[in-house]
Amino acid sequence: MNGSLKWKYELHEIIFESDTVKGKIFDIILLFFISLSTLIIMLESVSKINNEIGFWLYILDWWVTISFTIEYFLRLISVKNRWKYMTSFYGLIDLLTIIPTYLSIFFIQSHYLAIIRIFRLFRVFKILKLANYIDESNTMLITLKNSKRKIFVFLYFILLITLILGALMYVIEGENFSSIPQSMYWAIVTLTTVGYGDIAPHTVLGKIIASGIMILGYSIISVPAGLLSVEYRRNKIYKQNTQVCRYCMAENHEVDAIYCKRCGHLLNENLNTTDNPE
Amino acid sequence: MNGSLKWKYELHEIIFESDTVKGKIFDIILLFFISLSTLIIMLESVSKINNEIGFWLYILDWWVTISFTIEYFLRLISVKNRWKYMTSFYGLIDLLTIIPTYLSIFFIQSHYLAIIRIFRLFRVFKILKLANYIDESNTMLITLKNSKRKIFVFLYFILLITLILGALMYVIEGENFSSIPQSMYWAIVTLTTVGYGDIAPHTVLGKIIASGIMILGYSIISVPAGLLSVEYRRNKIYKQNTQVCRYCMAENHEVDAIYCKRCGHLLNENLNTTDNPE
Amino acid sequence: MNGSLKWKYELHEIIFESDTVKGKIFDIILLFFISLSTLIIMLESVSKINNEIGFWLYILDWWVTISFTIEYFLRLISVKNRWKYMTSFYGLIDLLTIIPTYLSIFFIQSHYLAIIRIFRLFRVFKILKLANYIDESNTMLITLKNSKRKIFVFLYFILLITLILGALMYVIEGENFSSIPQSMYWAIVTLTTVGYGDIAPHTVLGKIIASGIMILGYSIISVPAGLLSVEYRRNKIYKQNTQVCRYCMAENHEVDAIYCKRCGHLLNENLNTTDNPE
Amino acid sequence: MNGSLKWKYELHEIIFESDTVKGKIFDIILLFFISLSTLIIMLESVSKINNEIGFWLYILDWWVTISFTIEYFLRLISVKNRWKYMTSFYGLIDLLTIIPTYLSIFFIQSHYLAIIRIFRLFRVFKILKLANYIDESNTMLITLKNSKRKIFVFLYFILLITLILGALMYVIEGENFSSIPQSMYWAIVTLTTVGYGDIAPHTVLGKIIASGIMILGYSIISVPAGLLSVEYRRNKIYKQNTQVCRYCMAENHEVDAIYCKRCGHLLNENLNTTDNPE
Repeated sequence: MNGSLKWKYELHEIIFESDTVKGKIFDIILLFFISLSTLIIMLESVSKINNEIGFWLYILDWWVTISFTIEYFLRLISVKNRWKYMTSFYGLIDLLTIIPTYLSIFFIQSHYLAIIRIFRLFRVFKILKLANYIDESNTMLITLKNSKRKIFVFLYFILLITLILGALMYVIEGENFSSIPQSMYWAIVTLTTVGYGDIAPHTVLGKIIASGIMILGYSIISVPAGLLSVEYRRNKIYKQNTQVCRYCMAENHEVDAIYCKRCGHLLNENLNTTDNPE
Repeated sequence: MNGSLKWKYELHEIIFESDTVKGKIFDIILLFFISLSTLIIMLESVSKINNEIGFWLYILDWWVTISFTIEYFLRLISVKNRWKYMTSFYGLIDLLTIIPTYLSIFFIQSHYLAIIRIFRLFRVFKILKLANYIDESNTMLITLKNSKRKIFVFLYFILLITLILGALMYVIEGENFSSIPQSMYWAIVTLTTVGYGDIAPHTVLGKIIASGIMILGYSIISVPAGLLSVEYRRNKIYKQNTQVCRYCMAENHEVDAIYCKRCGHLLNENLNTTDNPE
Repeated sequence: MNGSLKWKYELHEIIFESDTVKGKIFDIILLFFISLSTLIIMLESVSKINNEIGFWLYILDWWVTISFTIEYFLRLISVKNRWKYMTSFYGLIDLLTIIPTYLSIFFIQSHYLAIIRIFRLFRVFKILKLANYIDESNTMLITLKNSKRKIFVFLYFILLITLILGALMYVIEGENFSSIPQSMYWAIVTLTTVGYGDIAPHTVLGKIIASGIMILGYSIISVPAGLLSVEYRRNKIYKQNTQVCRYCMAENHEVDAIYCKRCGHLLNENLNTTDNPE
Repeated sequence: MNGSLKWKYELHEIIFESDTVKGKIFDIILLFFISLSTLIIMLESVSKINNEIGFWLYILDWWVTISFTIEYFLRLISVKNRWKYMTSFYGLIDLLTIIPTYLSIFFIQSHYLAIIRIFRLFRVFKILKLANYIDESNTMLITLKNSKRKIFVFLYFILLITLILGALMYVIEGENFSSIPQSMYWAIVTLTTVGYGDIAPHTVLGKIIASGIMILGYSIISVPAGLLSVEYRRNKIYKQNTQVCRYCMAENHEVDAIYCKRCGHLLNENLNTTDNPE
């Protein structure tokens, strides 16, 4: 390993890994910069604050952007397969979130693009390795994937209800319910029990139908969670232990069980444990 | 099979089945027409859009309606028992949703009838065969049927609460709570945690009672879901173990049962367990 | 049994029981009168309707009240222990709901008392024998009784949160949060996710705290249901089958199980069933 | 034990314990004073009441404060380790809640400090020994501790959603959505289904996105409760079966376990089951 390679390897360790002291310091600095960047975006949007300290926020934003730009090139240098990094999810996030500030030089009205910088927050997941720690995440994804059709049918059912009730309320109420899409929006606001109150029924029949929607929404509130939880528990159990005792056919052993909790026989006879009672 | 019959049979295959390529193409065209029809109904109701492109929407609607009329007659021709199709759920939907456009020639103010065309959306369920795919739907229907009385009692309980609290608030508040039905409407809005805010208590006593209703509503929010889920799980379990004891014909064994809970005989005699009591 | 007694006995059968044809007809008439009475109360409260047909509602109300008065005396005659009936829950309801109309002769402003007539609705429970049909009701009552302390602590916890947060918001917001009780009312409206919007925070700090309350309320929404459901399931299981197999110690047998589902031994050996496999 | 010590011991029994008659009377008086104090704070904040009987509330407050001051010194005298009491949770509460009234002599505007007196309510938990009675509380604390990371990720997820959606709505809506923090506040109000209605979308795109947030919020409403309940049930089960295997010291057996799941030895050797594998 020559000097150049060693230098690259060390850089890779600092930037991508966090098991060295330097790597951990780098991660903390990164977290600070991401938080700072998010704070700048939020403060810039408050016109009162922007009028007062807008210039300093602009300077800070440039400082943060240049830092992230340098970091992006350091990442590019240290990785072996540059193209793979550039097209990876986090590689794209890294690139996309530094572009808006540079574009603001050429286009004055880059207001909307500035919002993209918020996606830097996704990197927190990677830095804190949250996904690894939560062993639920994988089960959750499988659950969502398996329940895809159920979720689709549930959403189609919601769409159907809101369309039919929206159309009905449009005919009955008129006034605030000025169009079917508007009535559908109201139906969703009511069905989900949000209830802004900017649109509300005024006729007797409208109020009766609205009451029905409210009770319906109130009743089916835990259906989606129920759909997921049933599937989730099934995935969880399957993941844990699928062994069935050969002697008494008892199922549902805990994931760390070696012996059958019902009859005491060894669950997996290929295992030769040292503390075998037989 | 002569030419006429073969032609009818092929037409039936295309229109009613979807296992041939032609049948699948027909279904996709149908889905497109249903979506288009729904979009037309929604856009027509937005006065701004209707003023601008109302004429084109009118033309499009006639095109869709004539297409659906032709499809209806093709269905009538291809089926064996015409009366059975016409009186079936989907047969009635097919007929009902093409009538409003024709009526609009004779009656200018067919505004309300136009809404009926929305029911075309129900056909999406049949086309996508959603009901078949979700093996839950049957269990769900049994659950709803078995819980009928519970649901009725729950709704009667809601009615009773809203009547008593509505009457109480009418006496206490007056003002916005201008009548008992109005107060009942408010009680439902509050109990279901929708909370529009168009009617809200202003007296101290009124606010105390309202707080009570809110906490009550907040507490019983998962009761209906709970009622259903208990029943649902029971139906699910019964469904899973379909074994019937060969000796006493007892059914409804639990999913992990090995011996008949009625007469003690082995349920599945292919299993040779070591701890057999016989 | 002489004529007078037989007449009383027959009257009792008609009024209190519903297994004869006459008894069932009586129940249906009673249900009609209760529904009519409730409708009158509701319509009387709507000033527009009361102005128009108030006189006829007044006549109808007197007719209903006199009918219920006659029924009350018939009940008094037919029962053996009159005092026991008069002091029973339904006896008191029967008496209380006929008094307001008679009082309206002496006191013009009996507006508030009129509301008492609504309690007639409670009798629907008795007529439809709803309580008997739902075998859950008993378990539900035991559950509520056993969870008394938990419910009390939960409500005390809600009171504590609303008091502290209400006091905090009163100090921070001022304006609409004009007093601590007012702020507490707002905290309950927010915590239960009702959100009328008549009182809403306007300061930055107020909005941050309000966001916290909302997320808290959103998170603990299923705690009360959870508290009850855990207790409820426990009661349900205990009620069903407490037998433990003497041979394999398996528990949680279904309520109709005679043999152990695990090892096939007789669960209760005092039972000598005819189809014993041993 | 001399007179002075006996006197202190008796005082300690009355103030800190509640198994003597005197101790119970002391607790009831304390509960009365705490309730009175809370009532004074609430009434003082209502300007109409404060204008009328403000002077009497001021007198009452001084009386309560002096009583609590005497109680504080009695507690200090009766305990053995004064420093330990003073730095304990309840010791600090006791001290903190008497200071504001004394400070009000020197600082006229002690409005904000007065709120601190509300924390006296925490003492109700100790007096009623609520924590002891609910055997759930310990399990609940363990559950919260074990779910710490999950709760953190859930809150981070909420923050991320509200930030991204808030920023999006700020760009789309403008007007009421005057800044990103303001839009985030709206997103939380909507996601938790509170829905004040003081900020509501007016554009078509804004309403579509808002509908999405509502359905999302409506769908994930029972996720936090689900996260806790899974963990909670696990802790509950572990707590129930307290047996430790005599052979391999394995803990955490399921409640229906007979044999150690680690080494296969009988857990409770007093049980002589017939199907013993040894």
